[in-house]
Amino acid sequence: MDHKVIYVAGLGLIGSSVALGIKRDHPDYTILGYNRSEKSRQIALERGIADEVTDDFTSFAPLADVIILAVPIKQTIAFIEELSRLSLKKNVLITDAGSTKFEIVKAAEHNFRHQPIRFVGSHPMAGSHKSGAIAADVNLFENAYYILTPTSLTTEETIEELKGDLSGLRARFITIDAAEHDRVTSQISHFPHVIAASLMEQAGEYAKEHEMTNHFAAGGFRDMTRIAESEAGMWASILLTNKESVLDRIEDFKQRLDSVADKIKNQDVDGIWQYFSHAKTIRQEMEIHKRGGLDSFYDIFINIPDEEDVILTILELLRGTSLVNLRINEKNRDDIHGILQISFKNAKDQAHAQKVIERHTHYKVMIQ
Amino acid sequence: MDHKVIYVAGLGLIGSSVALGIKRDHPDYTILGYNRSEKSRQIALERGIADEVTDDFTSFAPLADVIILAVPIKQTIAFIEELSRLSLKKNVLITDAGSTKFEIVKAAEHNFRHQPIRFVGSHPMAGSHKSGAIAADVNLFENAYYILTPTSLTTEETIEELKGDLSGLRARFITIDAAEHDRVTSQISHFPHVIAASLMEQAGEYAKEHEMTNHFAAGGFRDMTRIAESEAGMWASILLTNKESVLDRIEDFKQRLDSVADKIKNQDVDGIWQYFSHAKTIRQEMEIHKRGGLDSFYDIFINIPDEEDVILTILELLRGTSLVNLRINEKNRDDIHGILQISFKNAKDQAHAQKVIERHTHYKVMIQ
Repeated sequence: MDHKVIYVAGLGLIGSSVALGIKRDHPDYTILGYNRSEKSRQIALERGIADEVTDDFTSFAPLADVIILAVPIKQTIAFIEELSRLSLKKNVLITDAGSTKFEIVKAAEHNFRHQPIRFVGSHPMAGSHKSGAIAADVNLFENAYYILTPTSLTTEETIEELKGDLSGLRARFITIDAAEHDRVTSQISHFPHVIAASLMEQAGEYAKEHEMTNHFAAGGFRDMTRIAESEAGMWASILLTNKESVLDRIEDFKQRLDSVADKIKNQDVDGIWQYFSHAKTIRQEMEIHKRGGLDSFYDIFINIPDEEDVILTILELLRGTSLVNLRINEKNRDDIHGILQISFKNAKDQAHAQKVIERHTHYKVMIQ
Repeated sequence: MDHKVIYVAGLGLIGSSVALGIKRDHPDYTILGYNRSEKSRQIALERGIADEVTDDFTSFAPLADVIILAVPIKQTIAFIEELSRLSLKKNVLITDAGSTKFEIVKAAEHNFRHQPIRFVGSHPMAGSHKSGAIAADVNLFENAYYILTPTSLTTEETIEELKGDLSGLRARFITIDAAEHDRVTSQISHFPHVIAASLMEQAGEYAKEHEMTNHFAAGGFRDMTRIAESEAGMWASILLTNKESVLDRIEDFKQRLDSVADKIKNQDVDGIWQYFSHAKTIRQEMEIHKRGGLDSFYDIFINIPDEEDVILTILELLRGTSLVNLRINEKNRDDIHGILQISFKNAKDQAHAQKVIERHTHYKVMIQ
């Protein structure tokens, strides 16, 4: 099909950026947009994110070949129910953008079970501190994982067709079972949010009796609690749509804490050493240190001296190269000084940076 | 006393940097150094960190007016026992640099109880990823907290005298009870290390059954487990010399996990929302967002557009200003883009940076 009508329901950062990505490779597609707030609808029209917009979700649905639900999880499930009551195009392809997948897939399989509807779960693993259509970015998903979860309403061809529609996003598509997606993300994202919030609450309460708690918190504590500032509503939905996996991780973690506590009680210095040492090894072997990971970045590490304008010198050499991030990595006891880590979006920029820095400076550049 | 003999036992990063700091304000003091390895002794002599060095700890101790034990915790306690058997100068002032204080102070009070020895516990809260005398830095402690814990062998004057000796470190001296120090650091440092290592172990084990765990880990997970790469031996000692506080934090945390688990089991969406929301509020109110904290940095936050060479432009404006760190802060869902945070060592640089960036660009600069 050369021409398709794509209906993006929800013109927030994710929906708008997906729309721009689709247009990049498929300028001939028609993009219809739904959003409750008028402002994002206006921006979507002005910036060419959507060709037509509505505030009535049901009105555009029957026109679409592909429907992308880019709204919060609960709203996604409500829209799935609503769609099942509408008369949609035959074999319409419906997908979503929720952070948990099993509940959404279950709702789709149940509601669409007797209809000629194809449904694929999606979780685009990218974001920004910005939000709304105003922040729409055609490159938001470049090199990011874009997870697709098959369902009973999906064939191999459905997935390929959806990837084709989304090719302009330049994402890394991964197909994985919905329940397995939720298990993996419970471990590396959902449960860590529980830890961060719990640690923050604990420290806040402790500070009432031990005032210096407020002052002595260092880089390690700051990093560990950063995600405690995430949006509460979104994370409440995530926990409640991934209950079993999160509860399982909580129970498992409590046992780990018990085991460390036992080692401490027993003055088991070797055991504690092994425990810290093992954690260090696991982390060093994890993809966290390699390119890829959810960050999808290509990093270089530069051992920089503690002198003025070192970073400026390096950035001058990299003029015109797009940096995703840079930071000075702190190791050891507490903080200060270190190894400059610069993240690029692709291997070409990474290789260029290494070459140019090594040619023009005496700094050692490492690629992990 | 215009001239003093200072004996720094342990010429690692901390000991060497303390020695350089003392020399800055007291060029007339004699610095004696002890180190087991020859290399650090040589560097200390070559770089003027110490005037004389030894590999026999006991030999220089009787010559000193001030003895600074800058060795691991267990070694510190062993040296305290050794010093109690030597014939030291009358009213010698002894201090240390250990990360936990109560056990060390207890050992000093016990061993020195019948002697004309003054003992103050110290915990200089700074460090670097570098180590050894080779990394010695006269500015390592600039604006960092330098915690002093009084003992039964301490008077008000002892603390003032020690601060005078250490004035060249330009640190922020804080006097706090040793046990309270250990309680506060258990909350913001020791227990978080337990969490980071446990989360890392948990994810490592989970990855054996759920392979994508290795690949999907994002910025939040990476930040939360960074300190899991700390030095195992040092952290084993810290936990074992701060047992009660760490065990208390573990027990308390397990109860918090139970309470979240109950909310999840009961589908208590409001409760979970409140829990995340409360954590967010606490964090935003904590000194973590202000200058100070253990980092002792002065930060500016710049809302930068997603364009090439933005950071280069900003660093060109800051040419000649010493940056402690910079990073792009990631908020929201996952990662990418953001607010550029630049950390300075003092308020003057911070104010200068804000002024110059606001004058020459249209970026919004925030100081929290």
